[in-house]
Amino acid sequence: MCQHRRMSNAKVLPLLEPADGQGVAPCCPPLTERPMTAEEAETAARMFKALGDPVRLRLFSAVASHEGGEACVCDISDVGVSQPTVSHHLKKLKEAGLLTSERRGTWVYYRVEPSVLAAMGKLLSLPAAA
Amino acid sequence: MCQHRRMSNAKVLPLLEPADGQGVAPCCPPLTERPMTAEEAETAARMFKALGDPVRLRLFSAVASHEGGEACVCDISDVGVSQPTVSHHLKKLKEAGLLTSERRGTWVYYRVEPSVLAAMGKLLSLPAAA
Repeated sequence: MCQHRRMSNAKVLPLLEPADGQGVAPCCPPLTERPMTAEEAETAARMFKALGDPVRLRLFSAVASHEGGEACVCDISDVGVSQPTVSHHLKKLKEAGLLTSERRGTWVYYRVEPSVLAAMGKLLSLPAAA
Repeated sequence: MCQHRRMSNAKVLPLLEPADGQGVAPCCPPLTERPMTAEEAETAARMFKALGDPVRLRLFSAVASHEGGEACVCDISDVGVSQPTVSHHLKKLKEAGLLTSERRGTWVYYRVEPSVLAAMGKLLSLPAAA
């Protein structure tokens, strides 16, 4: 049983909106570059927290690795949790800006937001000299 | 007031121990490669959760960006929380395998575990074709 209710577009975190349209969010410098400000840490911690749950992480990976980079909520129901639980976690991932969703016909498709993934990867990047 | 008590070496998560001594932990494939297994997700979620708190993230960044890549607990007390709170968060980061600590003389020095940072960055890496 899939969700047929209308879902709004992803609530992307303000600081994560690509500034130049290039798709890479400018959120924060690498963690190793300088101490983060409180504001940067708030933004980034929200992203990390969203991935800090094993079930949520598996669902995120299921969407991210699905053919075409997107998945219907029905495609990813094999994680061993109920449909409402799947929906709950996908909503959290969307709120953190990690997933976007789109309703097409009778299905809701989820897709990973690549700019956010890139921003998190950049945050964790090591200095070239390390 | 710094901690003088003896601290054991980092409790590195089993799956994160470098297999080849090259310093890059083999934990998990990129999230976009295939759905994570339950075991992989348990390991990775612990790392993400550790960074999912703004204060903890700032402390981690303070250690990571400090001169020489390490910091005494006294060097990073400017985040606006009490010393016990700093200690609590550093302990959590150590338990997640993100920091190591070493007591030298009267000070405890914290250092980022680069293999874990690299493993998390790899997890978040996008496929080349994306």
